[in-house]
Amino acid sequence: MKNSEKLPKGRFITVEGSEGVGKTTNIEFIKHWLAENRIEFIVTREPGGTPLAEQLRELLLQPREESVDETAELLMVFAARAQHLNQVILPALRQGKWVLCDRFTDATYAYQGAGRSMNQDTIAQLENLVQNGLRPDAVILLDVSVEIGLQRARGRGELDRFEREDVAFFERVRAGYLARAANHSGYHVVDAGQPLDRVQQQLNLVLATLKADLT
Amino acid sequence: MKNSEKLPKGRFITVEGSEGVGKTTNIEFIKHWLAENRIEFIVTREPGGTPLAEQLRELLLQPREESVDETAELLMVFAARAQHLNQVILPALRQGKWVLCDRFTDATYAYQGAGRSMNQDTIAQLENLVQNGLRPDAVILLDVSVEIGLQRARGRGELDRFEREDVAFFERVRAGYLARAANHSGYHVVDAGQPLDRVQQQLNLVLATLKADLT
Repeated sequence: MKNSEKLPKGRFITVEGSEGVGKTTNIEFIKHWLAENRIEFIVTREPGGTPLAEQLRELLLQPREESVDETAELLMVFAARAQHLNQVILPALRQGKWVLCDRFTDATYAYQGAGRSMNQDTIAQLENLVQNGLRPDAVILLDVSVEIGLQRARGRGELDRFEREDVAFFERVRAGYLARAANHSGYHVVDAGQPLDRVQQQLNLVLATLKADLT
Repeated sequence: MKNSEKLPKGRFITVEGSEGVGKTTNIEFIKHWLAENRIEFIVTREPGGTPLAEQLRELLLQPREESVDETAELLMVFAARAQHLNQVILPALRQGKWVLCDRFTDATYAYQGAGRSMNQDTIAQLENLVQNGLRPDAVILLDVSVEIGLQRARGRGELDRFEREDVAFFERVRAGYLARAANHSGYHVVDAGQPLDRVQQQLNLVLATLKADLT
């Protein structure tokens, strides 16, 4: 984690990926690993993580007749993030806790940037305004083909406003995630199409390395 | 109205001012003037003006236990504005209608900028992102002392999250509005402490000038 302030050894881990990549299952696995390793942690998610930010999540996800302006959507995502970061994530990190977050700013680059073809510089400008240099220590990117992902996700019932996008949208999202992982450090791409024990073997390795870096 | 596109002769008028300056009464007066002059118009408000933007208004105004991050508040205001502008204001102006709006971006400079002492450059950056150069043709700033304004506003029952701010906050808001009016063109400051017929005489003059400019 980089920031202007001196911070203790909390670690900020985000789990990323498109629909149906297995975030929930693997976040459960990471929670168990953290508990077994007697690491103090919180689990949270984006958009959301505080009462106000969860209300914004509701507004973002609910299908609506009104067409949603892309810039409005992007600003709502970062509004929720500003609230979440200042009320929940930064206080936990300052206390030395690890923060495990279901999606963060990489999702914005993937969904709004790549998916909706929004200007990446605009996103970077807002990232800078809200995060002031803070980035996750590790981004775990669960990757699976769009076909398999959507098959899993769409078995879950009522689709939200994003899940209703077409296959081409999710292909752009996946490619957006992979491009970020290829061009930045701190990313761990995990093939989520493998059997679960193989996926979790990889997660073990990432977590052990993060922990070792602290000692 | 300045924008990259060629637009017909709709006019964009905003009515600004702090709590209790008489916006509602004077907006009614302007509506009557527009109707009498057979001008096609819409009346709208910020934050709000579309279903999504009204939901954001609710989130912004409701008092809450959670302390609201200033950047989150600012981004929510501009998210609502992006939606309102693209779904309501621009389409109306493109049809040649006049748009009468209860508060707009000057309120952001006054409340978030001056009131909350947020960086004006940050606000300008977001204004540019969302408005792409669009500004009101006329800003009618109703001005009255904070003492009188709050007396009027606080007689109305349940206070929203902004109305609960202290007197010093509203002094900064008022000064912020007056400073913008002094340093930019297109502002019409109306002393709203005068008897109503004097206030409306001034409004008549502003409106007649705006109409004359078009012919």
